[in-house]
Amino acid sequence: MVSRSKYEEIQSIRLIGTLLFFTAGSLAAEDVAQTVALHQSSLDMIWLLLAASLVFFMQAGFAMVEIGLTRAKNSGNIIMKNLMDFSVGALFYWAIGWALMYGSSVSGLFGFSQFFILEADSTLFRDWMFQVVFAATAATIVSGAMAERTKFSAYLVYSMILSAIIYPISGHWIWGGGWLGNLGFHDFAGSTVVHSVGGWAALMGTLALGPRIGKYVRKGKIVTSKAIPGHNLPLASLGVFILWFGWYGFNAGSTLSGTDLSMATVAVTTTIAASAGAIGSMAISWKLFKKPDVSMSLNGALAGLVGITAPTAVVTPTGALIIGLVAGLLVVLSVEFIDKKLHIDDPVGAISVHGVCGVWGTIAVGLFGATDSVKGLFYGGGFGQLIVQSIGALSVAAWVMITTGILFFAIKKTGGLRVTESEELQGLDLSEHNGEAYSGFQIFTTM
Amino acid sequence: MVSRSKYEEIQSIRLIGTLLFFTAGSLAAEDVAQTVALHQSSLDMIWLLLAASLVFFMQAGFAMVEIGLTRAKNSGNIIMKNLMDFSVGALFYWAIGWALMYGSSVSGLFGFSQFFILEADSTLFRDWMFQVVFAATAATIVSGAMAERTKFSAYLVYSMILSAIIYPISGHWIWGGGWLGNLGFHDFAGSTVVHSVGGWAALMGTLALGPRIGKYVRKGKIVTSKAIPGHNLPLASLGVFILWFGWYGFNAGSTLSGTDLSMATVAVTTTIAASAGAIGSMAISWKLFKKPDVSMSLNGALAGLVGITAPTAVVTPTGALIIGLVAGLLVVLSVEFIDKKLHIDDPVGAISVHGVCGVWGTIAVGLFGATDSVKGLFYGGGFGQLIVQSIGALSVAAWVMITTGILFFAIKKTGGLRVTESEELQGLDLSEHNGEAYSGFQIFTTM
Amino acid sequence: MVSRSKYEEIQSIRLIGTLLFFTAGSLAAEDVAQTVALHQSSLDMIWLLLAASLVFFMQAGFAMVEIGLTRAKNSGNIIMKNLMDFSVGALFYWAIGWALMYGSSVSGLFGFSQFFILEADSTLFRDWMFQVVFAATAATIVSGAMAERTKFSAYLVYSMILSAIIYPISGHWIWGGGWLGNLGFHDFAGSTVVHSVGGWAALMGTLALGPRIGKYVRKGKIVTSKAIPGHNLPLASLGVFILWFGWYGFNAGSTLSGTDLSMATVAVTTTIAASAGAIGSMAISWKLFKKPDVSMSLNGALAGLVGITAPTAVVTPTGALIIGLVAGLLVVLSVEFIDKKLHIDDPVGAISVHGVCGVWGTIAVGLFGATDSVKGLFYGGGFGQLIVQSIGALSVAAWVMITTGILFFAIKKTGGLRVTESEELQGLDLSEHNGEAYSGFQIFTTM
Repeated sequence: MVSRSKYEEIQSIRLIGTLLFFTAGSLAAEDVAQTVALHQSSLDMIWLLLAASLVFFMQAGFAMVEIGLTRAKNSGNIIMKNLMDFSVGALFYWAIGWALMYGSSVSGLFGFSQFFILEADSTLFRDWMFQVVFAATAATIVSGAMAERTKFSAYLVYSMILSAIIYPISGHWIWGGGWLGNLGFHDFAGSTVVHSVGGWAALMGTLALGPRIGKYVRKGKIVTSKAIPGHNLPLASLGVFILWFGWYGFNAGSTLSGTDLSMATVAVTTTIAASAGAIGSMAISWKLFKKPDVSMSLNGALAGLVGITAPTAVVTPTGALIIGLVAGLLVVLSVEFIDKKLHIDDPVGAISVHGVCGVWGTIAVGLFGATDSVKGLFYGGGFGQLIVQSIGALSVAAWVMITTGILFFAIKKTGGLRVTESEELQGLDLSEHNGEAYSGFQIFTTM
Repeated sequence: MVSRSKYEEIQSIRLIGTLLFFTAGSLAAEDVAQTVALHQSSLDMIWLLLAASLVFFMQAGFAMVEIGLTRAKNSGNIIMKNLMDFSVGALFYWAIGWALMYGSSVSGLFGFSQFFILEADSTLFRDWMFQVVFAATAATIVSGAMAERTKFSAYLVYSMILSAIIYPISGHWIWGGGWLGNLGFHDFAGSTVVHSVGGWAALMGTLALGPRIGKYVRKGKIVTSKAIPGHNLPLASLGVFILWFGWYGFNAGSTLSGTDLSMATVAVTTTIAASAGAIGSMAISWKLFKKPDVSMSLNGALAGLVGITAPTAVVTPTGALIIGLVAGLLVVLSVEFIDKKLHIDDPVGAISVHGVCGVWGTIAVGLFGATDSVKGLFYGGGFGQLIVQSIGALSVAAWVMITTGILFFAIKKTGGLRVTESEELQGLDLSEHNGEAYSGFQIFTTM
Repeated sequence: MVSRSKYEEIQSIRLIGTLLFFTAGSLAAEDVAQTVALHQSSLDMIWLLLAASLVFFMQAGFAMVEIGLTRAKNSGNIIMKNLMDFSVGALFYWAIGWALMYGSSVSGLFGFSQFFILEADSTLFRDWMFQVVFAATAATIVSGAMAERTKFSAYLVYSMILSAIIYPISGHWIWGGGWLGNLGFHDFAGSTVVHSVGGWAALMGTLALGPRIGKYVRKGKIVTSKAIPGHNLPLASLGVFILWFGWYGFNAGSTLSGTDLSMATVAVTTTIAASAGAIGSMAISWKLFKKPDVSMSLNGALAGLVGITAPTAVVTPTGALIIGLVAGLLVVLSVEFIDKKLHIDDPVGAISVHGVCGVWGTIAVGLFGATDSVKGLFYGGGFGQLIVQSIGALSVAAWVMITTGILFFAIKKTGGLRVTESEELQGLDLSEHNGEAYSGFQIFTTM
């Protein structure tokens, strides 16, 4: 089939055939069945491919948020990390990741078949496409927390192993037919599977790296946290809008079917939780800092989105409002606590947004679940679902912290995880990539 | 239903069931009916949710346009206004707005039921989702005209009331079963309902605020208008491309049905009008200023889009060409007139783009309408449609100008609408939000 | 039909009618046929309109890539070129282009009917919509290679003629029922039809213009190429992510049918090739320049995408991996060769990305084609397909180079193609458009 006009011929022949057939008045049951079944497959296909495209676009959102909230001198490096997160991640999720996540289950612990998705039909291709963009999201989350000081080569190794092994295995537990799913754990679109995995890996990465130079100043016993403001809030805000946009694919696409009309509920609860998250963070930042803070409010929208990701399909709009609002408050308190009390340096707040609010969203299923199959504490479901959700959140946290802990330790002991002090001060764009991101602009180089 | 693999099981059981059933040869009429009816609902659902997502993404477009066309020192504030426009607007449109717009009509004047869209099914959720993004668009339009000098808290109050009350009521008149719709007023996707509402509110906001410091310089009786150039045209252009992209959801989605094939006509007339608008503005700016002006041409594309929004489904491509071209000329003349003659300070040209071209598009229905049900003056329909369109445009203008006039007056008399002179000179990012948008960049602070 | 509520009434009446009818138990074959046929049309319509919207959005991607990889002083000019590419191109593709491409074939050489797509039905409108965004893509590619020194008026003339005549004629050969298509030439989504046309036109444009001032420095017989770094890598990376996102519409939409399930294969091979391209370019730049280069890696992703565009539907994931990887290596070698050896100044690498990798993708069909109808050399298909692909690539290259060569020569001899030296040094934003793109930012003006 070589030319478009030929494609069109074929299509019109097929369609005319169908019509002639129908209008001939002699309705053969098998042919109707075939056409209607094809439409079912097509609805699923169109829905999932477009949703996957939206989720892919979230990569741009993550890149813009991280670039915007850090310093100009590391922007090129962030681009590379985000581009390679997806590129390396996609190839490894093709070779290994899918097989460990969705292959035949070995005792509910991991999958083990369909490596390289060989002999795939269009349904398997479709499902891989929808899943690979989720895997890449998990990897990208970590990038922000490790920004401005990580060796690029070390980052590549981490990214590869997360996409190939760590993410798929806990993913298998929940979505691949594994033990947590069988226990009744509910995570509709990935508060735990995707976001908390990214969040906990981010925590371990940050701990392994230590803070950026100049971030914490010690005078005697007193440690002061210095703000290192981002260099491009417009890009950060664009990133948040892109992420929110893509989240409609992320959450609503997770119906996994183009004819599951609950996608409307999902879109509505997602919208309300994100809005409430932004408002919650704005309000608490206004109270704490006397002014409504821009980057906190942006993170609040993301917090609401992460929080609603698990419960989106099983809660009411009112439930979504509360979940989002709490996520918005939580993210600000968590960012402040991690920075000011724990002195852990997370440049973009990834641990709080994805880790803390990922757990919150997971727990919220057990509180606000309002459907027959998933009924939370506040809707007369007792503690059952809540306990299962907690087991899931804890198990995945333990799995990710242990494995990424080992991983970052191993990288540190072999190739090294962090750039040198002079490279960090110079900025990773020059030291790691031999270029500048904003050539020609006058930029202050102190800090 | 807890794990994905289970979802898939269910889905495959359902599908296999259908197929078995069909291929069994005993075609039961009710089952075919059910499946085909589900496909109808699914086509509508997928179409409207994806269109809604595209319209949501226009928020990013509005933010980038406004940021790009104003000064660096107010970028963070613009982000906050746009983020909160949507967030606050969505919650109030959920609580009140939808009920006033689409609830049971009280004498054709406003709706009054379905507050908080309680007891919603998936169809109502879907329709709310598609409408909330339109409501937020109207609110956001005003932001640009009031940029660089409005108190953030005052803006929040305005935004809330517009989304909750003002927009829904005139919307009810036209789309909710109200008196204008019953009169035969045609506004397919919102030249009047959305854009002119935003435009007139923008006019009143700007009048209530007065011009930015330094914008108009008086020497005796002569007032000179000083250009205050935008600080980031690449972002402004990105914003325009995002808006144009989103407009395919805005206009084509307004078929409100996934099986209304006139969506193709809508996409084509939208494309042609936007193109003609950009060319029209470029041409007239070239003539007036001796050079083709970048921000005028960008606004020209938006003008063409606003102009085609009402008539998009009822005009020919040639009609769309003329409508877009006229919108492109009009927007430049209007921007110049409002600035140079009326000395009204509208930093991004929102009154001209959305108000003037919104009215133009509304009138254009009565001139270029080319269908049986909507036939304009130039297509043998006489003055009938034209008169109805004019009545609609005027009524909505009066409604919005009176209500927002009162609103801005009330805000002025209570909390205050405008920041202090020193806050304005310092920039709203520092004075209202305690931060900078471009930390590290060397920026000229004079003006 | 004037108000939304009325639309909804109609829709619900229709649906209820259908349901009543079905559930009445008396299944009339013609009515089922009508509904199912409407669903077929709707699936095609939704798929193609959404894909077209995604491809439209690629305009933003091209603009951001070109802006990001060139100097700040020409950003406004680039915006104008990209905006007008589409706007002028769309109107001329409406008036003439479509007719020459898809009108009734005159001896397989060009089409000649349907000018101004008069008397179009929704199918023709749909098809035009999907094609116009492809035509605009071809025109936009050239912009990057001719950046920073081309007269704006000259660019408008070029852009108009490419969209109206040059692109449609070679397009007709392949997709419009012309001689190449009939020969069995396979170009699924346009490696040759779109990208190589842009690439070869870019080559001729660059040759006609000569290099930018200061790009090549001669000392005696030795010519040194000076790097002129781009001013905004974050925007360039955003552009690449937007292009990649849009490419899912570009490639998967090219099934031209919403029920052709091979769209999943297309999405998967597109993803894998793009990822492999980015990795390939990163790897070779790491080897050649000792550091992984940011803009090379970004171009590598685009190279992989261009390369997979022709073969995307007929290759395996493994085939896609190799095609993308080779494209990623090729683009770096080609950029270096064109710059350092040929001393041709292509600011963004458009010739290499779209021309060289467009040809590579076209040839790759003859190597990696793995379906019954398109079988390549490596899959037991012999040299047949490979020869046809080579004929196609060469014919289109010759056609475009000759016609654009004449075109640029004619422009040079009449209105002039290049700005003056002082205009170029000043920057095209000031000299051609009387404005600045980054007002208020301190920018170094040397170079």
